[in-house]
Amino acid sequence: MVKHIKWDGRSLRVLDQRLLPHKIRWINCDNLKKVFSVIKNMNVRGAPLIGIVAGFGLLLHIKNNKPKNVSQLRNLIEEATGILSQIRPTAVNIYLTLERIQTIFGYNTGKKIEEIISILESEVEKIWAEDIEISKEIAEYGQVFIEDDDRILTHCNAGGLATGGYGTALGVLFRAKELGKNFLVYVDETRPVLQGARLTCWELKQADIPYCLITDNMAGFLMKQGKIKKVFVGADRVTRNGGLANKIGTYSIAVLAKIHNVQFYVFAPSTSFDLRLETEEEIPIEERDPEEILYINNKAIAPIKSRVENPAFDITPPELVTAIICERGVIKPPYEENISAVIKPNFTKQDSPKM
Amino acid sequence: MVKHIKWDGRSLRVLDQRLLPHKIRWINCDNLKKVFSVIKNMNVRGAPLIGIVAGFGLLLHIKNNKPKNVSQLRNLIEEATGILSQIRPTAVNIYLTLERIQTIFGYNTGKKIEEIISILESEVEKIWAEDIEISKEIAEYGQVFIEDDDRILTHCNAGGLATGGYGTALGVLFRAKELGKNFLVYVDETRPVLQGARLTCWELKQADIPYCLITDNMAGFLMKQGKIKKVFVGADRVTRNGGLANKIGTYSIAVLAKIHNVQFYVFAPSTSFDLRLETEEEIPIEERDPEEILYINNKAIAPIKSRVENPAFDITPPELVTAIICERGVIKPPYEENISAVIKPNFTKQDSPKM
Repeated sequence: MVKHIKWDGRSLRVLDQRLLPHKIRWINCDNLKKVFSVIKNMNVRGAPLIGIVAGFGLLLHIKNNKPKNVSQLRNLIEEATGILSQIRPTAVNIYLTLERIQTIFGYNTGKKIEEIISILESEVEKIWAEDIEISKEIAEYGQVFIEDDDRILTHCNAGGLATGGYGTALGVLFRAKELGKNFLVYVDETRPVLQGARLTCWELKQADIPYCLITDNMAGFLMKQGKIKKVFVGADRVTRNGGLANKIGTYSIAVLAKIHNVQFYVFAPSTSFDLRLETEEEIPIEERDPEEILYINNKAIAPIKSRVENPAFDITPPELVTAIICERGVIKPPYEENISAVIKPNFTKQDSPKM
Repeated sequence: MVKHIKWDGRSLRVLDQRLLPHKIRWINCDNLKKVFSVIKNMNVRGAPLIGIVAGFGLLLHIKNNKPKNVSQLRNLIEEATGILSQIRPTAVNIYLTLERIQTIFGYNTGKKIEEIISILESEVEKIWAEDIEISKEIAEYGQVFIEDDDRILTHCNAGGLATGGYGTALGVLFRAKELGKNFLVYVDETRPVLQGARLTCWELKQADIPYCLITDNMAGFLMKQGKIKKVFVGADRVTRNGGLANKIGTYSIAVLAKIHNVQFYVFAPSTSFDLRLETEEEIPIEERDPEEILYINNKAIAPIKSRVENPAFDITPPELVTAIICERGVIKPPYEENISAVIKPNFTKQDSPKM
């Protein structure tokens, strides 16, 4: 378990994930603008985590503006929702948090303002606490896929840092380690932001799990050599058909895994499923700042002003996925059928926050 | 054409490719040890170029030690050959240079010492001059594969900087540009040493060819989106069957190209063919220093002392290659047959320098 966010009712402190593992710096967020900025700049990142942090951002907006009546409160919620909906479009979790808050608000408009705010605050804290429990359930279902002497590739960071504190794909590794299993984890460094090198290695090191860092272009060759047996990744959004969006590079790994008969497992909480979308093709893919690629540690790596493409995510079709593991169990193909049997629609409002 | 090495008969000056594109620094090499070091540390890199630079290293060893007779000269050549054979095992070009020098030496042992040395010096200069001519011939055969509005992916740097001065895969682009063709080049940054970002972008910019820099994990997704039509790469060694070794990541790109019906072209001088080897599986793959991955711009990107794998190259089987273009023309499958029809064995001596 990592402790990477702290909420005291008046401000949120977040561990700056851009400086890890070499610097521990906490950023104090006492208003919505600050929360917007730490999500946008990826000081906090990971689909489940930004869903939680966005919830606290909305709370800060309410509390700082001291609404006097339900109508003012509703306006503040709508205002914050509009702002938070625009930060990072690919992961579904921010939208889900916003809808949960709207729904809870809708149920409680008859109560006193202070009481409603307190209920909303409890709801955000509940989203956080639930996420940790969900991760632990995923870990339990997932650990059965790890055998002794396994060699598992992971991409990006699907650990405690990406979630409420325990982790999805990495949570499974933590649980298997607790159970005494021996295995090696290959970690893709995950350019451009290097979440694999900086965050996943750090979490695995703390958990005393043997790991080997590689550049993103090595996985195919290691699979060909028989060095990688399984791939474990998280997901930013899973669609009805079992397709998904995840960190850029995931699709290539999935293709390479298929070709080399390597199993490709996705670990995702039910909160990452978006049953409003038929296929992964409908998921909006965030394009990020070119500077993320052009500069490493503040130094340019290419001629300045070089043209760049920087999709932060890519999409993986269901036929490349061996199984999806959520807190309700293991979902295997046919996904269309099996997902709808296990996952309830998360979005129920007609006017749910725009994806 | 780049000017990146200068020979004045007494020392070799090489442009430091580790500092490009942001710093122009020349390194003076006036002895074999210095030449060993610039090849080992990749201040100069690229299969054809290190073949040329190694030749000058051998010359420096001879000249600095002023041999008085043929026997002393033979010893110096053998000594330098032993040292130069151990620097970088994957590309074949150093071995070929060494064999050419041994062969020429063998033909001329009856001559005066000064004359033999002068003949050997001319031979190294000839290897360099030939490489430039060869690149231009490859460019002419290769440019026909570029259509207007093409979108071509390249990996690592197969440009002037990797060769005598013109370039293989990039030489083809330069020629097509001269002929007025319009196309876009996607450039893989090519971790860990970033030759794509630092060197290929720099060369394309100077040639005024539009390019777009991407991280190595993006190519698969761009192929899926239909944004990449062709792949152009060089090769460090091509075997009898049409398999090859090239910069790490090439194999994954070749698999992804096959899956997405993207044509995969290899541009390599006949000097990069090694007909002693049946298949690419026999090519030795260099494993480089972990620090190359762990540090970028002298700053660690992961917990220090993290375990790392760092194969500098990978191998691509012939079934993934659309065609190999050398200075003698376009070679298509069946490679076994067509390569032996076009390429003469480069290595003829029984005791040729150990690969």
